[in-house]
Amino acid sequence: MRFHTRKWVKPENLNPNGTLFGGKLLAWIDEELALYTIIQLKNTKVVTKYMSEINFRSSAKQGDIIEIGIDVLKFGTTSLTLKCEARNMMTRETIITIDHTTMVNLGPDGKPKPHGKTEIEFIKDRLDN
Amino acid sequence: MRFHTRKWVKPENLNPNGTLFGGKLLAWIDEELALYTIIQLKNTKVVTKYMSEINFRSSAKQGDIIEIGIDVLKFGTTSLTLKCEARNMMTRETIITIDHTTMVNLGPDGKPKPHGKTEIEFIKDRLDN
Amino acid sequence: MRFHTRKWVKPENLNPNGTLFGGKLLAWIDEELALYTIIQLKNTKVVTKYMSEINFRSSAKQGDIIEIGIDVLKFGTTSLTLKCEARNMMTRETIITIDHTTMVNLGPDGKPKPHGKTEIEFIKDRLDN
Amino acid sequence: MRFHTRKWVKPENLNPNGTLFGGKLLAWIDEELALYTIIQLKNTKVVTKYMSEINFRSSAKQGDIIEIGIDVLKFGTTSLTLKCEARNMMTRETIITIDHTTMVNLGPDGKPKPHGKTEIEFIKDRLDN
Amino acid sequence: MRFHTRKWVKPENLNPNGTLFGGKLLAWIDEELALYTIIQLKNTKVVTKYMSEINFRSSAKQGDIIEIGIDVLKFGTTSLTLKCEARNMMTRETIITIDHTTMVNLGPDGKPKPHGKTEIEFIKDRLDN
Amino acid sequence: MRFHTRKWVKPENLNPNGTLFGGKLLAWIDEELALYTIIQLKNTKVVTKYMSEINFRSSAKQGDIIEIGIDVLKFGTTSLTLKCEARNMMTRETIITIDHTTMVNLGPDGKPKPHGKTEIEFIKDRLDN
Repeated sequence: MRFHTRKWVKPENLNPNGTLFGGKLLAWIDEELALYTIIQLKNTKVVTKYMSEINFRSSAKQGDIIEIGIDVLKFGTTSLTLKCEARNMMTRETIITIDHTTMVNLGPDGKPKPHGKTEIEFIKDRLDN
Repeated sequence: MRFHTRKWVKPENLNPNGTLFGGKLLAWIDEELALYTIIQLKNTKVVTKYMSEINFRSSAKQGDIIEIGIDVLKFGTTSLTLKCEARNMMTRETIITIDHTTMVNLGPDGKPKPHGKTEIEFIKDRLDN
Repeated sequence: MRFHTRKWVKPENLNPNGTLFGGKLLAWIDEELALYTIIQLKNTKVVTKYMSEINFRSSAKQGDIIEIGIDVLKFGTTSLTLKCEARNMMTRETIITIDHTTMVNLGPDGKPKPHGKTEIEFIKDRLDN
Repeated sequence: MRFHTRKWVKPENLNPNGTLFGGKLLAWIDEELALYTIIQLKNTKVVTKYMSEINFRSSAKQGDIIEIGIDVLKFGTTSLTLKCEARNMMTRETIITIDHTTMVNLGPDGKPKPHGKTEIEFIKDRLDN
Repeated sequence: MRFHTRKWVKPENLNPNGTLFGGKLLAWIDEELALYTIIQLKNTKVVTKYMSEINFRSSAKQGDIIEIGIDVLKFGTTSLTLKCEARNMMTRETIITIDHTTMVNLGPDGKPKPHGKTEIEFIKDRLDN
Repeated sequence: MRFHTRKWVKPENLNPNGTLFGGKLLAWIDEELALYTIIQLKNTKVVTKYMSEINFRSSAKQGDIIEIGIDVLKFGTTSLTLKCEARNMMTRETIITIDHTTMVNLGPDGKPKPHGKTEIEFIKDRLDN
């Protein structure tokens, strides 16, 4: 799994118990899923359609650094199925994993539209590493 | 199901496609689950432990009003199992349902602790309606 | 008075003294007034025109749960006069009451427009309780 | 009246109708009242206790610049009474005026405490203009 | 140098070490540069083009009040060169100074456009002090 | 240069002209500098001390994806000198480069403290790629 985006747990991201607010983490993950899909499908109009069950295995505290990783499971005709994980960057402890999330490619009319992709493109590796 | 909290979809809550950012909605739901649990268990130290699969059935646009509803499914020894739904307040169209979410009651040491509750208390109805 | 929306006092909502930032509470109340009016008048274009004096009777601390209640005082031709209150959900202690707030119904041209309503509609009760 | 703080109306400050969200403006004003009081009373522990009625005379749109002005009306024993206004910086059009707001000076125990001040100190003028 | 805008360092503005998050301070400064330029050039379409080196001389803690000052260094044909400083309002301790920032005046096509201004206008002093 | 963190330009990140607010981008970069340093120095107490001049070469619009890259230039005794860049992920167009930023390692007393590191550690590569 490739981990890109990193987040610093600042006071504004805490719940009243002083640990990372779970809802904030879900928002970070949903953003990462969306932008990963946009990059792969080369289409800015995508939506999150489905997330499989979510286990909160551990939490994070102020000052921790979270990284979010994504793997492609399957290219559908109009969809992209991803797996994702958020973990503590220093300890490598997993916070959340979501085994299947379905992202849908939309056309200008807002309806599902074939995206024509069948495999991951490592834009990053290809161009600048 | 009882719907309490209402949210107004403001520009700050939108994704770049101009619809409600899904991550924001998940954050709103997670906050509602937490405060509902705190009220029922009379303990401010609770955590979201599990969410069953999430289907995004519809979206919402700027100016829409979202309401979030919660039902209790089961009182465990140290947990509370809830069902929740977010819907458009005017159209009654469902946006998301999460069939099972497990909230855990924690003691001062941060470990699961029996909460001693076995049924819903309608604080609201009892006192002020 | 009917209390719907609930807010969890998170670290991001505090003033530097560690209590709920009053400006945040006013923002929460203004949002609730707006969405309550939108629901009653079935018009998304409404504005807050007037608030009577505001007494801050008590404060709230991190982890408290605030609920916001609204009552209709009067249906004017183009306006709706509301009363509102924010209180601590567990202690029932009142934080703020605003005795009169005038909300105005606007037409597409941004000018006051008759709304044609004369009484409260309990959409909620009618449909789902 | 002296106007200091200026705010730029960005998309994140708008309501769904595309004008400045009134609740945000109230939050800006409350912050300005607090910091003005802290500077005058040389005490960081102050609270907003009372605001007289608020008329929303005009609104503001994306890109407008708002400035907030404050005048001292009276030094009480433990309080400071202020008048404030928010206006559009380019047009000079008034958006809101609040004729009386009472700020209270607190001691370390959180209770009202005499502040010993009887007149405005123009720190700014004295030191750096 | 004239100091106008003031900010209250609230918990939401802190980094995980409990001091003012530097990135937040840079955002406050960038907003102040933009709105100062808009007022001087009487054009809402301006952009930050350049900032000279930035030294973080001191920090600020929760509850501190920051004020931001700006001086005009030079009126170019399509640009405005400013100097700015952020300091602690009570102690007068400098936090950051940026010796040169270049703001550019844009036309409706988004390209640099002569602004026709050659000197500072003290709108404020002229009209209301 | 290695690019990790990615940001989605949402409406809440725009300035009133509808492009990415420069202050927000600076805040994203400052966070990335801090967390990169924390990871390299294995110390959570670090501060941004210096940034060399900043040129805003291009902007970004709603829906664009920004990625932030960092390179180590030099390990000092108590400091770490970094180079950073923010660019548009799809077009590879550079938005900002900052040639030198000095991050300082602090001890528990808040004073500069030797960090004992002399070279980059590719934690990521070592453990999971």
